[in-house]
Amino acid sequence: MAYRTHHCGELRIADQGKEVELSGWVAKNRDFGGLTFIDLRDRYGITQLSFNDTVNPELLNSARGLGREFVIQVKGIVKERESKNKNIPTGEIELEVTELHVLNAAATPPFTIDNDTDGGEELRMQYRYLDIRREPVKNKLILRHQLAQKIRNYLSDAEFIEVETPVLIKSTPEGARDFVVPSRMNQGQFYALPQSPQTFKQLLMVAGMDKYFQIVKCFRDEDLRADRQPEFTQIDCEMSFVERDDVLNVFEGMVKAILKDVKGADLGQFPRITYADAMYHYGNDKPDTRFEMQFNYLKGGRNGDDLVSGQGFGIFDSAPAVIALNIKRGATRTRKEIDKLTDWVKRPQVGAKGLIYCRLGAEGAHKSSVDKFYGQDKLNEWAKFCDAEEGDLIVVISGDLIPAQTQMSALRLKLGEEEGLRDPSIFKPLWVVDFPLLEWDEEHKRYHAMHHPFTSPLAEDMELLKSDLSKVRANAYDMVINGVELGGGSIRIHDKALQSSMFDALGFTSAEAEAQFGFLMNAFKYGAPPHGGIAFGFDRMCALIGGTDSIRDYIAFPKNNMGRDVMIDAPSKVDVDQLNELGLKLK
Amino acid sequence: MAYRTHHCGELRIADQGKEVELSGWVAKNRDFGGLTFIDLRDRYGITQLSFNDTVNPELLNSARGLGREFVIQVKGIVKERESKNKNIPTGEIELEVTELHVLNAAATPPFTIDNDTDGGEELRMQYRYLDIRREPVKNKLILRHQLAQKIRNYLSDAEFIEVETPVLIKSTPEGARDFVVPSRMNQGQFYALPQSPQTFKQLLMVAGMDKYFQIVKCFRDEDLRADRQPEFTQIDCEMSFVERDDVLNVFEGMVKAILKDVKGADLGQFPRITYADAMYHYGNDKPDTRFEMQFNYLKGGRNGDDLVSGQGFGIFDSAPAVIALNIKRGATRTRKEIDKLTDWVKRPQVGAKGLIYCRLGAEGAHKSSVDKFYGQDKLNEWAKFCDAEEGDLIVVISGDLIPAQTQMSALRLKLGEEEGLRDPSIFKPLWVVDFPLLEWDEEHKRYHAMHHPFTSPLAEDMELLKSDLSKVRANAYDMVINGVELGGGSIRIHDKALQSSMFDALGFTSAEAEAQFGFLMNAFKYGAPPHGGIAFGFDRMCALIGGTDSIRDYIAFPKNNMGRDVMIDAPSKVDVDQLNELGLKLK
Repeated sequence: MAYRTHHCGELRIADQGKEVELSGWVAKNRDFGGLTFIDLRDRYGITQLSFNDTVNPELLNSARGLGREFVIQVKGIVKERESKNKNIPTGEIELEVTELHVLNAAATPPFTIDNDTDGGEELRMQYRYLDIRREPVKNKLILRHQLAQKIRNYLSDAEFIEVETPVLIKSTPEGARDFVVPSRMNQGQFYALPQSPQTFKQLLMVAGMDKYFQIVKCFRDEDLRADRQPEFTQIDCEMSFVERDDVLNVFEGMVKAILKDVKGADLGQFPRITYADAMYHYGNDKPDTRFEMQFNYLKGGRNGDDLVSGQGFGIFDSAPAVIALNIKRGATRTRKEIDKLTDWVKRPQVGAKGLIYCRLGAEGAHKSSVDKFYGQDKLNEWAKFCDAEEGDLIVVISGDLIPAQTQMSALRLKLGEEEGLRDPSIFKPLWVVDFPLLEWDEEHKRYHAMHHPFTSPLAEDMELLKSDLSKVRANAYDMVINGVELGGGSIRIHDKALQSSMFDALGFTSAEAEAQFGFLMNAFKYGAPPHGGIAFGFDRMCALIGGTDSIRDYIAFPKNNMGRDVMIDAPSKVDVDQLNELGLKLK
Repeated sequence: MAYRTHHCGELRIADQGKEVELSGWVAKNRDFGGLTFIDLRDRYGITQLSFNDTVNPELLNSARGLGREFVIQVKGIVKERESKNKNIPTGEIELEVTELHVLNAAATPPFTIDNDTDGGEELRMQYRYLDIRREPVKNKLILRHQLAQKIRNYLSDAEFIEVETPVLIKSTPEGARDFVVPSRMNQGQFYALPQSPQTFKQLLMVAGMDKYFQIVKCFRDEDLRADRQPEFTQIDCEMSFVERDDVLNVFEGMVKAILKDVKGADLGQFPRITYADAMYHYGNDKPDTRFEMQFNYLKGGRNGDDLVSGQGFGIFDSAPAVIALNIKRGATRTRKEIDKLTDWVKRPQVGAKGLIYCRLGAEGAHKSSVDKFYGQDKLNEWAKFCDAEEGDLIVVISGDLIPAQTQMSALRLKLGEEEGLRDPSIFKPLWVVDFPLLEWDEEHKRYHAMHHPFTSPLAEDMELLKSDLSKVRANAYDMVINGVELGGGSIRIHDKALQSSMFDALGFTSAEAEAQFGFLMNAFKYGAPPHGGIAFGFDRMCALIGGTDSIRDYIAFPKNNMGRDVMIDAPSKVDVDQLNELGLKLK
């Protein structure tokens, strides 16, 4: 007999009376003596099998011996169930089994294969092949597949060509650390694994490919923070003869179509906000705009307001920036709760010196931690300035502008979380544009490209390239949804003269520029079109759309924070012979 | 102005009178004094631009200065052409240019960007970004994209899930040589790049994924023969609860659908032939069946016929096998031509000792190179046996069975080529099944798995595992089209006891088996379903469908035979600092 005529998620009441065959795993075995029910599971669902004393005592006996996760094959007749299960699509029927084959026995799994398992993360990683049997993990991998399919079809319909770029490429000292691959045939030389296909996609534009994309593995040998993987997947895209808005429109369209399709979410037009405004209003270049809670500058803001100085409170007097946040209906927070918030912002990860608060009561009944310095009138002023009313809670952080912004941003996100304003089923997208072109590296006393050295400055900032590098804005953009940077890109430099100025600004000698980017610069001699592109973090996109924080769940076989695959136990030692062949020695 | 309103392949006579904008590369500049025509090229096609003395002398002047491959942007009015070009879709119109911007100048390319270029292969590889501008190369990359899309959609519709398996995995000493990646965080340890996702796809079956596929880069550090690349792309697939025919049907369906779609070819049902029969009739486990020319065993065949011994010709008397091939209408070949064939089979690459021939004339007028030993009656017998008639040419190779088969196979393919029987627009598929499970390694005096150690033996050959390992056939299969092995796979072992016997047969101690395949064996304890799969060489599939021999053309950025990317000059030296960080030293 073939292994099956149907899947375990397929049979319905309309199939009643049919003789069918199923194969799958024993998910549950409920033994009632003369009657045994088995939940048979495969990728597609669960079907209840029934074994009955009166029908076939021998078969019943075999069934009672089946342990969890045994692989079995059964033949039987589809029957209507006595007690129906409305929670599963096959819940109206069961299979009265007439034939049973054990295809494979199974040892007891080290954790339960349930939606809520008893296995800890390390154990589940070690037995990832069992973890994937669990519905939530399996569904995440299926979602990932569906998203990749939809993205490929969307871009393909829009005349993008997927081109596979090489994995064994050339190491460049710039940027993050490369993984390298020793070459046996060219001893003493190494390939590098790509951190992104950036150069190749630009070469494809020089090659006239016009619209390129690739869903592609990239590699970065970084010390791993939580939720960073040494190998990750990008949706990498590039277009020729485009300006910024052409790129934004295409990929806004793509993300809208996908979220509509998968989540039924209607995102509308994505707002566009400058980097400067994002930092000013949210202290963050990837603001979560599912909730408002914008910054109110009691001091140090753009309008020059100062609602705090000269009242004898030295901390505010000396602080360049004093930023307030209004927590609507937050005045119910107890003193203890506010102290906890204060402790939270004072942790080194946030780094604030302290947190000032003001509980807004009725007129004249505000209560603040700085009552000694600020009377009811002043607090009224604050309230008005922050658009706050009775029952709200104002919290204030002060200090140098950028640290205060960053600290307040962290607090804003935490408060949004606590107030339940960060609903994962709501999607709030925006574009952040006009990033700084360069960032100052204090350690090496030089500028680095914030994006990469081929990013074009904004046309209106070209003059600043000669006068004030710190002020030059890039024609670069990030797509942000719910506080997550989904992707980013830029319009590239295609003009040789401008590229030279850029290398100058970055402190490259022409020899250094030649050594590192020579082949790209050489390619640009032969007719480079204006071009620009974007790259999305696909793992992160899956997690965002799937509604969870961790990208790890969306990766079939992830690595841990030490870059190890604990399932296969990699990396591992290699034979000394193999090292000899590569012309290498361990130190 | 935006860069373009249309592509260069888009405008038709119906657009006459429209004002449009185009961007692209100057493909040709034909200067007739008061009139200049430019062919403007982009990915989508070519549009003729016209610049006219009477319309705008200044513009004409600028146009005359445009060199090949300059990137320009133009505005103009669509006009009907005077002399139409029926060979291109835009051939009825031209653009009378009213505005011209040079977006980028271009140095003269090192070879002509034409369908038939003057550039040699090495030069074109070095400037691959210019090579890709050429129509034939560009179209091959586009075909590759289309094939990948169609395959993904076909498999996705058939409920296959694409799962990305890791690239940084574990090195195993078995099989071909791995590329390794030193781990910085785990010094002295290495990742390996996958030669295939074999273990992971089997783990995904244990995980209950049921139907998996992936179009995925794989890596092999082999000495490169022509048309081997260190990185190559596989279509990797695996299914659970299947028998051989389930797998064959799915992928036969896939390849048929794709060839129907892309080439309009109707492949019909794929014949299935055993490995033994393929070797017997064609001397080859991937026979090109676009033409017949099957082997005729004058001696050493299955029926025990002997049409050659005892006539005083020592070479045939002592040869275990004497194989004849009938070249229809081949008797017109001159003596000189036949001598050339003889020289060809005697080259070390083929290795035959010589070639006997017999030109078939009218009854009694045959002419052979062994007339001294074989009279007209004997030659008549040969002719009859080979189904040959007047005007045909019989060629004969003798020796030990396998070398004679292999040599004759090489000759058969060459003759098919010479006779024009290997038309790349015809597709002749077949399945080769029942491969030997093991092959004897004379050097190490042990058996190796022909496919891999998880390949299941045929059910009917299980007993032979204990008696005669050389005779055990595998439940393995190859898809062959036009003499090219497109893909191969097998039904895997899912039973622990059988797997142990297999490791025994391969001469593994259980400790060795544990060290190498421990994590897979461990996974198999927890309920492995019956499963099997297949992997296709995607680069080769593209080349076959594209109708060319070289896979290199279908790879955007291929490496040369030394594994070098001559465009980016990789591999290359790395900093000693980087080696230090990795705990490595060059020897």
